[in-house]
Amino acid sequence: MTIREINIPKRTIMTPGPVEVHPRVLRALSYPVLGQFDPAFTEMMNEVMAMLRQLFRTKNNWAFPVDGTSRAGLEAVLASIIRPGDKVLVPIFGRFGYLLAEICERYRADVYTMECPWGEVFAPEDVIREIKRVAPEIVAIVHGETSTGCMQPLEEIGRACRELDVLCVVDAVATIGGTDVNTDEWCLDAVIGGTQKCLSVPSGMAPITFNSRIEKRINERKKVERGIATEEDLKRERERAPIFSNYFDISQLMDYWSPRRLNHHTEATSMLYALREGVRVVLEEGLGERFERHRLHEAALVEGIRAMGLELFAEGRRKLPTVTCVKVPEQIDADLVRNMMLDEFGVEIASSFGPLHGKIWRIGTMGYSCRKENVLFTLAALEAVLIHVGAPVQPGRALQAVLSFYHEKTAVKGGVS
Amino acid sequence: MTIREINIPKRTIMTPGPVEVHPRVLRALSYPVLGQFDPAFTEMMNEVMAMLRQLFRTKNNWAFPVDGTSRAGLEAVLASIIRPGDKVLVPIFGRFGYLLAEICERYRADVYTMECPWGEVFAPEDVIREIKRVAPEIVAIVHGETSTGCMQPLEEIGRACRELDVLCVVDAVATIGGTDVNTDEWCLDAVIGGTQKCLSVPSGMAPITFNSRIEKRINERKKVERGIATEEDLKRERERAPIFSNYFDISQLMDYWSPRRLNHHTEATSMLYALREGVRVVLEEGLGERFERHRLHEAALVEGIRAMGLELFAEGRRKLPTVTCVKVPEQIDADLVRNMMLDEFGVEIASSFGPLHGKIWRIGTMGYSCRKENVLFTLAALEAVLIHVGAPVQPGRALQAVLSFYHEKTAVKGGVS
Repeated sequence: MTIREINIPKRTIMTPGPVEVHPRVLRALSYPVLGQFDPAFTEMMNEVMAMLRQLFRTKNNWAFPVDGTSRAGLEAVLASIIRPGDKVLVPIFGRFGYLLAEICERYRADVYTMECPWGEVFAPEDVIREIKRVAPEIVAIVHGETSTGCMQPLEEIGRACRELDVLCVVDAVATIGGTDVNTDEWCLDAVIGGTQKCLSVPSGMAPITFNSRIEKRINERKKVERGIATEEDLKRERERAPIFSNYFDISQLMDYWSPRRLNHHTEATSMLYALREGVRVVLEEGLGERFERHRLHEAALVEGIRAMGLELFAEGRRKLPTVTCVKVPEQIDADLVRNMMLDEFGVEIASSFGPLHGKIWRIGTMGYSCRKENVLFTLAALEAVLIHVGAPVQPGRALQAVLSFYHEKTAVKGGVS
Repeated sequence: MTIREINIPKRTIMTPGPVEVHPRVLRALSYPVLGQFDPAFTEMMNEVMAMLRQLFRTKNNWAFPVDGTSRAGLEAVLASIIRPGDKVLVPIFGRFGYLLAEICERYRADVYTMECPWGEVFAPEDVIREIKRVAPEIVAIVHGETSTGCMQPLEEIGRACRELDVLCVVDAVATIGGTDVNTDEWCLDAVIGGTQKCLSVPSGMAPITFNSRIEKRINERKKVERGIATEEDLKRERERAPIFSNYFDISQLMDYWSPRRLNHHTEATSMLYALREGVRVVLEEGLGERFERHRLHEAALVEGIRAMGLELFAEGRRKLPTVTCVKVPEQIDADLVRNMMLDEFGVEIASSFGPLHGKIWRIGTMGYSCRKENVLFTLAALEAVLIHVGAPVQPGRALQAVLSFYHEKTAVKGGVS
């Protein structure tokens, strides 16, 4: 059987993920694998844990990847802490809030939701009032909602949860490595990141961190092995709900990621190399510098979008700095524009979900994709296609505005990466 | 913060997985990523499905990877078909049988087990008798049990399940790509493979296939989306058990892997490149030729082990052709020998689990690791370390026996890959 060689077309990927992978990460993926208990590999596991603590800005003992895509990390945390009937409050401001609620339902939580219109975020006091009213065991909330380009402020909510002894679980898939996620200072009990967005690592791993409050709850549910359990163990086990997944059982993942090294799965070797290199790139750049770079190119993109005569969907303080949502001009077929950008320019931007499909385009400025030439080329492609389909844009203005913007910033700061 | 560059030491990996990754697969891992809905990527998804059908020897419509390590594939299939209280029969002949039982328990099946001593397999008629007695909905069984180096014949069991209208789910993680797994002819309803063993792809994906019997059962449990469900839908939904995982919900994975392309997770791009290239290498070699190569190097290894004066743990027809278990000579510290092989020679072999830990070594001959020079170097290292620790081996005989074996085979067949 003859199957053709893989041929990857050249793309400029400006979606909210997956985005372009950093060349150093691509190189790391091609290194030979090691056995999972090879000391050279277990040492790397420990290094990754140390690096993830810095990325999540935490002193938590536990920080490691779950082997699966981002939602595997979300499900691992939620599956490990939700006991059937537990009250979970999920404030929803876009598609990924629904995902959190849906995962909680699968694990038979008593799910309470509150919603605000897509394109807005919650006033923290509204969420806190609802926490007091519902008195949930857990609040599960999205930080950066890529479906609407909005970012929920978490500091007050996290602190309120701590005071009220509620566990606060945060989906930071779209923000980790691109804008501040301050786990400890914001009192977040568990935070789940994604690899394929601002970390510029391929999809397939989900770095998570959680504190001793979460750990305590998980250990209460830990299964004692058949052969070594006493009658009392078994009685206690019957009384408490076990974790209803083997793959996502964080009590077993802790045994694997601790010096005990109890075999659970076989760690995804090459993806761990990639994560290590990706986070290494982030920490070398510096978290503060990296967040500033993300804001710079976001601002440049917004400048160009506006100069073209287009409008933003979500702006101001609620805007997610790593995703920019652009309103599709009336009478313009949003998918036709996207497809033409991909076919003619190799530039990929995203549509959105549900009520926003066809209404907005979503443009990511994430990780390695968040670069000057990508911003310029995306605007050039968008403008050309819009002119081609007869949209009322101001020809030539976007790139001039963006060039001026960069020159001004460069003159002040010196150098734009 | 300065973190050192990754430095991977050179290893000869002769464990039952993860094993050495094929160089072409390592290269594929380093290609730039594509967006998940890029036509160039969705075309690749379809290609992978077509290639997996050939690998699994099936006409099944469904053959795709689950994004997670091998046990993620096992859990996805079991989670999607087990309704609480369903009877599942798990014949156990080693550690990974226990894993199947444990996953089924987590999803609240009524689990029936039968066991045979580690190092043996079941007579098919014994399993069939138990199926008739228990009358389970599902039989879940391991094909190649790496913990004991044994392989369970499945043809009669699969056919009996079909006749009795029982679903037969098979863990072929250790056998797929290394020895025959004949899904359709053996009447297996769902088969789960692993990447990091005979396919020589890194850990992190689990290719699965399943037929319309499994599909029907999964679709009966499919969740209807809130906004479009009628009163009758909701009533029916209340009556039937939903799938208790979002990540492992195969009804949603089918929507993602079908022309509908309904977004579920973001497919693990680089791992999909790796799987595509790994299976491409397998199909180019040819399944028959590849299985023959595995038997050849297994036989060479066994020849050397015996010539050295060591004994096998499981032999004959029940032996797994991709793993050879060797009895540790009396008074010899099994882990000390393994560690010295790794430290001095960079050669990795494995210990075993539970009752067999310290009693046997397990040597894999899998995928790209299954090569003449690896067999020779592993035997040389094992012999030298055993002499060093004072074990009663016959010096020098192993390699001479193996060289003669290969020369003889080469003279007959011409060429040994």
